Amino acid sequence: MADEVLTHSTAYENLSVLTKKVGGRLAGSPGMVKAEKWGFEALKAAGADTVYLQECLVPHWVRGAKEEARIISKRRDYTPPLNVLALGNSIGTGEKGVSAPVLEVSSFDDLEAKKDQVKGKIVFYNYPFNPKFIKTFHSYGDAAKYRGGGASRAAKYGAVAVIVRSMSHAANNEAHTGAMQYDPNYAKIPAVAIGLQDADRLSQRVKDDPSAQVFLRTNCVMLADTIGHNVIGELRGSKHPDQYLTVGGHLDSWDVAEGAHDDGTGCVQSIEVLRTFKAMGYQPERTLRVVLFANEENGTRGGKKYAELAKQRNEKHIFALESDAGGFTPRGFIMDLPAELKAKVVSWRPLFEPYGIYDFDEVGGGVDVGQLHAALGTPMAELSPDSQRYFDIHHAPIDVFENVNKRELELGAFAMGALLYMVDKSF
Amino acid sequence: MADEVLTHSTAYENLSVLTKKVGGRLAGSPGMVKAEKWGFEALKAAGADTVYLQECLVPHWVRGAKEEARIISKRRDYTPPLNVLALGNSIGTGEKGVSAPVLEVSSFDDLEAKKDQVKGKIVFYNYPFNPKFIKTFHSYGDAAKYRGGGASRAAKYGAVAVIVRSMSHAANNEAHTGAMQYDPNYAKIPAVAIGLQDADRLSQRVKDDPSAQVFLRTNCVMLADTIGHNVIGELRGSKHPDQYLTVGGHLDSWDVAEGAHDDGTGCVQSIEVLRTFKAMGYQPERTLRVVLFANEENGTRGGKKYAELAKQRNEKHIFALESDAGGFTPRGFIMDLPAELKAKVVSWRPLFEPYGIYDFDEVGGGVDVGQLHAALGTPMAELSPDSQRYFDIHHAPIDVFENVNKRELELGAFAMGALLYMVDKSF
Repeated sequence: MADEVLTHSTAYENLSVLTKKVGGRLAGSPGMVKAEKWGFEALKAAGADTVYLQECLVPHWVRGAKEEARIISKRRDYTPPLNVLALGNSIGTGEKGVSAPVLEVSSFDDLEAKKDQVKGKIVFYNYPFNPKFIKTFHSYGDAAKYRGGGASRAAKYGAVAVIVRSMSHAANNEAHTGAMQYDPNYAKIPAVAIGLQDADRLSQRVKDDPSAQVFLRTNCVMLADTIGHNVIGELRGSKHPDQYLTVGGHLDSWDVAEGAHDDGTGCVQSIEVLRTFKAMGYQPERTLRVVLFANEENGTRGGKKYAELAKQRNEKHIFALESDAGGFTPRGFIMDLPAELKAKVVSWRPLFEPYGIYDFDEVGGGVDVGQLHAALGTPMAELSPDSQRYFDIHHAPIDVFENVNKRELELGAFAMGALLYMVDKSF
Repeated sequence: MADEVLTHSTAYENLSVLTKKVGGRLAGSPGMVKAEKWGFEALKAAGADTVYLQECLVPHWVRGAKEEARIISKRRDYTPPLNVLALGNSIGTGEKGVSAPVLEVSSFDDLEAKKDQVKGKIVFYNYPFNPKFIKTFHSYGDAAKYRGGGASRAAKYGAVAVIVRSMSHAANNEAHTGAMQYDPNYAKIPAVAIGLQDADRLSQRVKDDPSAQVFLRTNCVMLADTIGHNVIGELRGSKHPDQYLTVGGHLDSWDVAEGAHDDGTGCVQSIEVLRTFKAMGYQPERTLRVVLFANEENGTRGGKKYAELAKQRNEKHIFALESDAGGFTPRGFIMDLPAELKAKVVSWRPLFEPYGIYDFDEVGGGVDVGQLHAALGTPMAELSPDSQRYFDIHHAPIDVFENVNKRELELGAFAMGALLYMVDKSF
């Protein structure tokens, strides 16, 4: 199977089209519609028996014109603009923007300690992405709460906006957007992510210059829900067509990027699993369903719809595998499986090790297949690639095709196909 | 130790200076001299007790003006130039260049089969870099013989020049240079590497167009040997100062690149091992010697000199570790060790696995420490990073700082330091 993928894969070419011809494809955007058409055709071309769309409502958040942020001060010196991106789902500042002094906090504890100083300020969460975790997803898990919940936590004490240090330890100044949620108990206030170098600059300036304020203008707006689709392709099972193996990634991406690693690679790898099975003449015993999920980034509505319908229809789901951690060299899978199945998968390790795939120990699964897991208890797994470069590009404008390596992408697709093959053969 | 490296490493900053301020540094070039000065200062800054130069003679090959190659044909249509780079150590064509019909061969066997057609031709070795090997160094080992020995094999049958398909499976058209050697029994003929897309184009053209020839001009020349240096920094052993642990990379690089992954990363990682030991207050029991080897690329004179002097001085070398496979995420070490030591190192695997370092099975070592191994039987190892991206940039103009990831580089340095620490502690 590795030979087939490494010599005839169409994953890289597919990704080139998705990133360069479709591009950014946030839920509700014209890119979403183009991406759904692309997915439909790509699944047909890969040899799916059936390809169809599964409708769902998706949020429709629009960034609008480019954000602006700058330091203003009585010193009246020139400071370059701060590189910021509005957080997904956040409200705009209005045309006039907001100007306010900045209160830097290092954590939620620090916010609580300074709660009396918050009113009328822009709260600046300058919590660093911890470099000591070896797997960078652990740093992300550690830091992402400031992006997701920071606005409402600060609004509770009267903040007028928040600036969040980007979830990254890259050696550059890219701003990294991402979803946030408002707590309905507090006022909605604007929220942006700031590039790391500018975060350091801002931090220094507010220490040095008591008169420093930040001017911030964001132009985003949350519109009414609109219609999106999961795009699904099937390879009918030879023995148990009514039992399902799901494999997928999410089709949506942030608007500011091409969504190459997040999650174009997961989509084209999932399609590649189907293409490889067909090319090798392997008809799975169970029906293989490739699902390109809608709206993972700011709502998970696609994953939820897929799980809801599976439950409604009483479908029998054997296994669900996701790829949403980047198209880097595979190292293993994170999994949430019943003990017996887990033991079986671990017993296959020697078969995977020659391909550099050895890490089967971490418990978890993807956000989209997680919905199926929650609804039906379906055993789930997520491809676990090398994570060192992911947060350099994650949710940033540099998540582009050029930062994907063809062989790394292909080896991930192979890993996924091999795992599904083994699962299909072992029941 | 990982915390220290991941939070305070100077490896990335050091690499930035070496690649951007020094740049290309082939043996005998002005860059070599600048690099030696840089290495001397960097080792002092890292905290070495002693820093010194070890003189050796190095070859002095000069590329001269940019190579030219193009298809010429009776069709007189426009074809863009072919992207080629002269191979290291090769002779120039002379100012007028050579024009000759092209004989494409797929292998040495194919050359033998076509030996009667070789006379007066440019032999084009179009041997693909095999994508089926999982570790790309195995593809390199498989293909590199055409670059190293192809010219003389073709000259034997009267070829006037050779063109070698680049040793890469990158999705671009970069030409990848590298060392070649002449067999003294045959005429010296010019030799170039060609980019992959141009290799395909040339192959198609010679099939389609019987009148097609190639015009080739290279301007390289091999001058008399000159003087270079290994740059060495030591941290004196606390218990056994007369026993040595060597760690190193090679300071030279090809002229056309910044020598970032090859082998700037190996140099700055080796320096980082010393800096980390100092920063942690760890005085090794044996003397740690960081060696920035001269002239690995087209002569290995630095590695040979180091081994020769070690032998002459009857030095006791306990272990030698090299990093010359790129600054990518570490996966393990290739090693050539006595059985008892090998068993000991393998027993440490559980300590390394949390850092994604698990692959201790392959036998081998680096080219430079290999000289010490050959001369004294010194146990040797080489850092084995993820190899998927290495041959995209290897010996090509895109081997630049921007293609190195800070964390991947640092994790490699940590792996090296950890292994040397364990070795030092275990005798």
